[in-house]
Amino acid sequence: MNLKKMVGIQAASYVKDGMTVGLGTGSTAYYMIEELGRRVKEENLSIVGVPTSFASREQAQELGIPVKTIDEVQKVDVTIDGADEIDKNFNGIKGGGAALLFEKVVATYSDHTIWIVDESKMVQTLGKFPLPVEVVPYGEEQLFRLFKEKGYNPTFRMATETEKKVTDCGHSIIDLHLETIENPEALATELDQLVGVVEHGLFLNIVETVIVGRTTGAETIEAIR
Amino acid sequence: MNLKKMVGIQAASYVKDGMTVGLGTGSTAYYMIEELGRRVKEENLSIVGVPTSFASREQAQELGIPVKTIDEVQKVDVTIDGADEIDKNFNGIKGGGAALLFEKVVATYSDHTIWIVDESKMVQTLGKFPLPVEVVPYGEEQLFRLFKEKGYNPTFRMATETEKKVTDCGHSIIDLHLETIENPEALATELDQLVGVVEHGLFLNIVETVIVGRTTGAETIEAIR
Repeated sequence: MNLKKMVGIQAASYVKDGMTVGLGTGSTAYYMIEELGRRVKEENLSIVGVPTSFASREQAQELGIPVKTIDEVQKVDVTIDGADEIDKNFNGIKGGGAALLFEKVVATYSDHTIWIVDESKMVQTLGKFPLPVEVVPYGEEQLFRLFKEKGYNPTFRMATETEKKVTDCGHSIIDLHLETIENPEALATELDQLVGVVEHGLFLNIVETVIVGRTTGAETIEAIR
Repeated sequence: MNLKKMVGIQAASYVKDGMTVGLGTGSTAYYMIEELGRRVKEENLSIVGVPTSFASREQAQELGIPVKTIDEVQKVDVTIDGADEIDKNFNGIKGGGAALLFEKVVATYSDHTIWIVDESKMVQTLGKFPLPVEVVPYGEEQLFRLFKEKGYNPTFRMATETEKKVTDCGHSIIDLHLETIENPEALATELDQLVGVVEHGLFLNIVETVIVGRTTGAETIEAIR
């Protein structure tokens, strides 16, 4: 079994009858949603899914999982999502799939957040994975110039060779190629305060449980804060 | 002459040949743009306007002022805009016209920002005017609930009795009825860090010159920082 599938199925076991479940986005979350769909069908599991992207919503609906938006529920019991990097303090980078904004919104209103990754995503220090910054299109070239001046090595996320990627919410994404993020908190605050930045891929102090797929099996780690 | 018209015309005199000019939004900025249009036509003034809303862009174009977006210029020489409240430290609340995001983007890249107001806008402490917060539609009901819990007396900005106002950038606006903002910096930081908040109407340490229309004449105040 591939590692992503292993942790996807493992994570789905956290979901109990009656729960409202945040449905992550990406190749690992895909297997988790698939497993939830199987349990809905075969085990009569009764849940409500809160998808973090159009893609996950579509997948859930096709599998017969009832879905609601984050605004149609009181709160989310558990959110299961992938991550692009997780450091030793259980801070992460997300947004490789361009769904960081909705993912962060759903995680914000979740009692319990679980990240599912294969072992290649566990790192000492964040930053090798490009940090996505979701920005308002108006002023994006100015922001790009600013990031360049700061030495953040920005690139626009592209949909095609000539067209910029547009997020589910109509924004652009600038990826920062930082290699090493010494102080994630300071960078998060800096980005939060920049005019035109809607959200960024630094997910700090958000996750409670990490399930890591290793060739030796799935390891579950509880984040201690 | 009405006070708004008086300061609008006065502010336009800061604009010199060859300048790139940020064009504010609202009833006071309207007169400034009108005066610039007159100078373009009658005095052969050569400028480029960077409008902060679709409405201002339309007005400028009708008057024959060439316009560009903020991303098509290197920087802005001077931006002239209205404000809804200005306190004794020259911090302001803007966004009564729902253009706060574009207004803040343009002001951010301007060498010189001028606010033009009638005397009713000058206050000791900010907050009597509802503070606009521009938010991503996804999660807006959760944010609304959060603001309510915090005692911020939120209301959604409405376009009609039943439909929420949508900004030029596709977001919603939640107005916070705070009455008094004791610590604008702290509130700005709090709002900046909230997931789903795109921008807010607190404009801190942005303006250099305030032109106040009083019944006794236009008073120009230089902000000392």
